[in-house]
Amino acid sequence: MKIVSSALLILTVLTSHGQTQESAMNTFDKNFAHTVYFWLKNPDSQADRKAFETSLRKFLNNSAFAKTKFIGTPPRASRDVVDGSFTYSLIATFESSEAQKNYQDEAPHKLFIKESEHLWDKVIVYDSTGIIE
Amino acid sequence: MKIVSSALLILTVLTSHGQTQESAMNTFDKNFAHTVYFWLKNPDSQADRKAFETSLRKFLNNSAFAKTKFIGTPPRASRDVVDGSFTYSLIATFESSEAQKNYQDEAPHKLFIKESEHLWDKVIVYDSTGIIE
Repeated sequence: MKIVSSALLILTVLTSHGQTQESAMNTFDKNFAHTVYFWLKNPDSQADRKAFETSLRKFLNNSAFAKTKFIGTPPRASRDVVDGSFTYSLIATFESSEAQKNYQDEAPHKLFIKESEHLWDKVIVYDSTGIIE
Repeated sequence: MKIVSSALLILTVLTSHGQTQESAMNTFDKNFAHTVYFWLKNPDSQADRKAFETSLRKFLNNSAFAKTKFIGTPPRASRDVVDGSFTYSLIATFESSEAQKNYQDEAPHKLFIKESEHLWDKVIVYDSTGIIE
Protein backbone atom coordinates (compact mmCIF):
# COMPACT_ATOMS: atom_id res chain seq x y z
CA MET A 1 0.00 0.00 0.00
CA LYS A 2 2.92 2.28 0.83
CA ILE A 3 4.41 1.54 -2.61
CA VAL A 4 1.14 2.40 -4.35
CA SER A 5 1.04 5.70 -2.46
CA SER A 6 4.61 6.48 -3.50
CA ALA A 7 3.83 5.69 -7.13
CA LEU A 8 0.76 7.89 -7.00
CA LEU A 9 2.78 10.66 -5.40
CA ILE A 10 5.38 10.46 -8.16
CA LEU A 11 2.67 10.60 -10.82
CA THR A 12 1.00 13.56 -9.08
CA VAL A 13 4.29 15.44 -8.93
CA LEU A 14 4.93 14.74 -12.62
CA THR A 15 1.45 15.94 -13.57
CA SER A 16 1.67 19.09 -11.45
CA HIS A 17 5.05 19.89 -12.95
CA GLY A 18 3.52 19.68 -16.44
CA GLN A 19 0.71 21.99 -15.46
CA THR A 20 3.04 24.56 -13.90
CA GLN A 21 5.13 24.69 -17.05
CA GLU A 22 2.02 25.16 -19.20
CA SER A 23 1.51 28.75 -18.00
CA ALA A 24 4.77 30.00 -19.55
CA MET A 25 5.56 27.08 -21.86
CA ASN A 26 3.71 25.40 -24.64
CA THR A 27 4.39 22.65 -27.07
CA PHE A 28 5.82 23.71 -30.40
CA ASP A 29 5.15 21.47 -33.39
CA LYS A 30 8.03 21.65 -35.85
CA ASN A 31 5.94 20.37 -38.73
CA PHE A 32 4.38 23.74 -39.54
CA ALA A 33 4.97 27.20 -38.02
CA HIS A 34 2.68 30.11 -38.89
CA THR A 35 3.76 33.59 -37.76
CA VAL A 36 1.76 36.77 -38.27
CA TYR A 37 2.68 40.40 -37.54
CA PHE A 38 -0.12 42.95 -37.15
CA TRP A 39 0.23 46.72 -37.35
CA LEU A 40 -2.86 48.29 -35.76
CA LYS A 41 -4.22 51.57 -37.15
CA ASN A 42 -4.31 53.00 -33.63
CA PRO A 43 -1.63 51.18 -31.64
CA ASP A 44 -1.97 53.68 -28.78
CA SER A 45 -5.72 53.19 -28.39
CA GLN A 46 -6.32 51.01 -25.33
CA ALA A 47 -9.86 50.28 -26.58
CA ASP A 48 -8.57 48.99 -29.93
CA ARG A 49 -5.88 46.90 -28.24
CA LYS A 50 -8.37 45.39 -25.82
CA ALA A 51 -10.79 44.56 -28.67
CA PHE A 52 -8.01 43.00 -30.77
CA GLU A 53 -6.58 40.94 -27.91
CA THR A 54 -10.02 39.69 -26.86
CA SER A 55 -10.96 38.70 -30.40
CA LEU A 56 -7.63 36.99 -31.13
CA ARG A 57 -7.60 35.16 -27.79
CA LYS A 58 -11.17 33.93 -28.37
CA PHE A 59 -10.23 32.67 -31.83
CA LEU A 60 -7.17 30.77 -30.59
CA ASN A 61 -9.04 29.27 -27.65
CA ASN A 62 -11.74 28.03 -30.02
CA SER A 63 -9.41 26.73 -32.74
CA ALA A 64 -9.38 22.96 -33.05
CA PHE A 65 -6.11 23.00 -34.99
CA ALA A 66 -3.72 25.66 -33.65
CA LYS A 67 -0.94 24.67 -31.29
CA THR A 68 1.40 27.06 -29.42
CA LYS A 69 -1.09 29.98 -29.54
CA PHE A 70 1.48 32.67 -28.74
CA ILE A 71 0.42 36.33 -28.74
CA GLY A 72 3.24 38.84 -28.28
CA THR A 73 4.19 42.48 -28.41
CA PRO A 74 7.59 44.01 -29.23
CA PRO A 75 9.86 44.55 -26.21
CA ARG A 76 10.74 48.18 -25.45
CA ALA A 77 14.47 47.92 -25.95
CA SER A 78 15.22 46.61 -29.41
CA ARG A 79 18.48 46.25 -31.27
CA ASP A 80 19.07 48.12 -34.54
CA VAL A 81 18.56 45.08 -36.75
CA VAL A 82 15.19 44.25 -35.19
CA ASP A 83 11.87 45.39 -36.71
CA GLY A 84 9.99 46.45 -33.59
CA SER A 85 7.36 48.50 -35.45
CA PHE A 86 4.52 45.94 -35.33
CA THR A 87 1.78 46.06 -32.68
CA TYR A 88 1.08 42.34 -32.14
CA SER A 89 2.63 39.05 -33.18
CA LEU A 90 1.02 35.63 -33.38
CA ILE A 91 2.86 32.32 -33.52
CA ALA A 92 0.83 29.16 -34.06
CA THR A 93 2.10 25.71 -34.99
CA PHE A 94 0.38 22.76 -36.63
CA GLU A 95 0.90 19.05 -37.01
CA SER A 96 0.67 19.32 -40.82
CA SER A 97 -0.04 21.73 -43.65
CA GLU A 98 -3.51 20.14 -43.86
CA ALA A 99 -4.17 21.15 -40.25
CA GLN A 100 -3.02 24.69 -41.10
CA LYS A 101 -5.41 24.72 -44.06
CA ASN A 102 -8.26 23.60 -41.79
CA TYR A 103 -7.39 26.42 -39.36
CA GLN A 104 -7.64 28.95 -42.21
CA ASP A 105 -11.16 27.75 -42.93
CA GLU A 106 -12.36 27.42 -39.33
CA ALA A 107 -15.40 29.46 -38.28
CA PRO A 108 -13.47 31.01 -35.30
CA HIS A 109 -10.80 32.27 -37.75
CA LYS A 110 -13.36 33.84 -40.06
CA LEU A 111 -15.08 35.46 -37.06
CA PHE A 112 -11.75 36.90 -35.86
CA ILE A 113 -11.08 38.48 -39.27
CA LYS A 114 -14.62 39.87 -39.45
CA GLU A 115 -14.39 41.30 -35.94
CA SER A 116 -10.88 42.69 -36.14
CA GLU A 117 -9.81 43.55 -39.69
CA HIS A 118 -10.99 47.14 -39.31
CA LEU A 119 -8.45 47.52 -36.48
CA TRP A 120 -5.31 46.80 -38.52
CA ASP A 121 -3.47 48.66 -41.20
CA LYS A 122 -1.02 45.97 -42.32
CA VAL A 123 -0.48 42.25 -41.79
CA ILE A 124 2.55 40.16 -42.75
CA VAL A 125 2.32 36.36 -42.67
CA TYR A 126 5.19 33.86 -42.89
CA ASP A 127 4.63 30.10 -43.07
CA SER A 128 7.43 27.57 -42.54
CA THR A 129 7.72 23.83 -42.59
CA GLY A 130 10.41 22.57 -40.25
CA ILE A 131 13.63 20.90 -41.27
CA ILE A 132 13.52 17.85 -39.01
CA GLU A 133 17.01 16.61 -38.20
CA MET B 1 7.01 -6.45 -6.28
CA LYS B 2 4.33 -6.57 -8.96
CA ILE B 3 3.18 -3.11 -7.87
CA VAL B 4 6.72 -1.72 -8.15
CA SER B 5 7.00 -3.18 -11.66
CA SER B 6 3.72 -1.57 -12.64
CA ALA B 7 4.82 1.79 -11.28
CA LEU B 8 8.13 1.51 -13.13
CA LEU B 9 6.29 0.54 -16.32
CA ILE B 10 4.03 3.59 -16.01
CA LEU B 11 7.03 5.86 -15.49
CA THR B 12 8.86 4.29 -18.44
CA VAL B 13 5.85 4.79 -20.70
CA LEU B 14 5.57 8.44 -19.59
CA THR B 15 9.26 9.03 -20.23
CA SER B 16 9.24 7.33 -23.62
CA HIS B 17 6.19 9.35 -24.64
CA GLY B 18 8.11 12.54 -23.83
CA GLN B 19 11.08 11.41 -25.89
CA THR B 20 8.95 10.46 -28.88
CA GLN B 21 7.30 13.86 -28.91
CA GLU B 22 10.69 15.59 -28.77
CA SER B 23 11.52 14.69 -32.38
CA ALA B 24 8.68 16.75 -33.86
CA MET B 25 7.78 18.85 -30.84
CA ASN B 26 9.72 21.18 -28.65
CA THR B 27 8.94 23.35 -25.70
CA PHE B 28 8.03 26.93 -26.49
CA ASP B 29 8.76 29.57 -23.87
CA LYS B 30 6.20 32.36 -24.07
CA ASN B 31 8.42 34.80 -22.23
CA PHE B 32 10.46 35.78 -25.29
CA ALA B 33 10.11 34.73 -28.95
CA HIS B 34 12.79 35.64 -31.48
CA THR B 35 12.01 35.04 -35.17
CA VAL B 36 14.41 35.64 -38.05
CA TYR B 37 13.86 35.42 -41.82
CA PHE B 38 16.87 34.98 -44.10
CA TRP B 39 16.98 35.64 -47.82
CA LEU B 40 20.05 33.88 -49.24
CA LYS B 41 21.93 35.44 -52.16
CA ASN B 42 21.80 32.13 -54.00
CA PRO B 43 18.75 30.28 -52.73
CA ASP B 44 19.07 27.69 -55.51
CA SER B 45 22.68 26.82 -54.68
CA GLN B 46 22.71 23.48 -52.85
CA ALA B 47 26.25 24.23 -51.60
CA ASP B 48 25.16 27.55 -50.07
CA ARG B 49 22.08 25.97 -48.51
CA LYS B 50 24.12 23.13 -47.02
CA ALA B 51 26.71 25.56 -45.62
CA PHE B 52 24.02 27.79 -44.12
CA GLU B 53 22.06 24.91 -42.56
CA THR B 54 25.18 23.33 -41.10
CA SER B 55 26.37 26.61 -39.61
CA LEU B 56 22.95 27.53 -38.16
CA ARG B 57 22.36 24.04 -36.75
CA LYS B 58 25.81 24.05 -35.11
CA PHE B 59 25.10 27.44 -33.54
CA LEU B 60 21.73 26.37 -32.15
CA ASN B 61 23.08 23.09 -30.82
CA ASN B 62 25.85 24.99 -29.03
CA SER B 63 23.68 27.79 -27.65
CA ALA B 64 23.26 27.66 -23.88
CA PHE B 65 20.24 29.98 -24.01
CA ALA B 66 18.05 29.23 -27.05
CA LYS B 67 14.93 27.12 -26.65
CA THR B 68 12.69 25.81 -29.47
CA LYS B 69 15.52 25.96 -32.10
CA PHE B 70 13.21 25.76 -35.11
CA ILE B 71 14.68 26.03 -38.63
CA GLY B 72 12.16 26.16 -41.45
CA THR B 73 11.64 26.82 -45.13
CA PRO B 74 8.55 28.18 -46.91
CA PRO B 75 6.05 25.53 -48.03
CA ARG B 76 5.52 25.28 -51.78
CA ALA B 77 1.86 26.19 -51.87
CA SER B 78 1.33 29.54 -50.22
CA ARG B 79 -1.73 31.73 -49.98
CA ASP B 80 -1.74 35.24 -51.49
CA VAL B 81 -1.37 37.04 -48.17
CA VAL B 82 1.70 35.00 -47.19
CA ASP B 83 5.27 36.23 -47.78
CA GLY B 84 6.93 33.04 -49.02
CA SER B 85 9.95 34.79 -50.54
CA PHE B 86 12.45 34.06 -47.73
CA THR B 87 14.88 31.15 -47.90
CA TYR B 88 15.08 30.12 -44.21
CA SER B 89 13.27 30.98 -41.00
CA LEU B 90 14.49 30.61 -37.44
CA ILE B 91 12.31 30.60 -34.34
CA ALA B 92 13.99 30.55 -30.94
CA THR B 93 12.43 31.24 -27.55
CA PHE B 94 13.97 32.34 -24.27
CA GLU B 95 13.06 32.37 -20.60
CA SER B 96 13.72 36.13 -20.40
CA SER B 97 15.00 39.13 -22.34
CA GLU B 98 18.26 38.74 -20.40
CA ALA B 99 18.66 35.19 -21.77
CA GLN B 100 18.02 36.57 -25.28
CA LYS B 101 20.69 39.21 -24.70
CA ASN B 102 23.14 36.52 -23.58
CA TYR B 103 22.37 34.52 -26.73
CA GLN B 104 23.18 37.57 -28.87
CA ASP B 105 26.60 37.76 -27.24
CA GLU B 106 27.37 34.02 -27.23
CA ALA B 107 30.49 32.85 -29.07
CA PRO B 108 28.46 30.30 -31.16
CA HIS B 109 26.21 33.16 -32.37
CA LYS B 110 29.17 35.31 -33.37
CA LEU B 111 30.73 32.34 -35.15
CA PHE B 112 27.50 31.69 -37.07
CA ILE B 113 27.37 35.32 -38.28
CA LYS B 114 31.05 35.23 -39.25
CA GLU B 115 30.63 31.94 -41.12
CA SER B 116 27.34 32.71 -42.85
CA GLU B 117 26.75 36.43 -43.36
CA HIS B 118 28.31 36.31 -46.82
CA LEU B 119 25.54 33.86 -47.82
CA TRP B 120 22.59 36.15 -47.17
CA ASP B 121 21.25 39.23 -48.88
CA LYS B 122 18.65 40.32 -46.34
CA VAL B 123 17.61 39.44 -42.81
CA ILE B 124 14.48 40.52 -40.91
CA VAL B 125 14.27 40.00 -37.16
CA TYR B 126 11.19 40.29 -34.97
CA ASP B 127 11.30 39.98 -31.18
CA SER B 128 8.18 39.51 -29.04
CA THR B 129 7.46 39.20 -25.37
CA GLY B 130 4.42 37.07 -24.69
CA ILE B 131 1.15 38.26 -23.25
CA ILE B 132 0.67 35.66 -20.53
CA GLU B 133 -3.01 35.16 -19.74
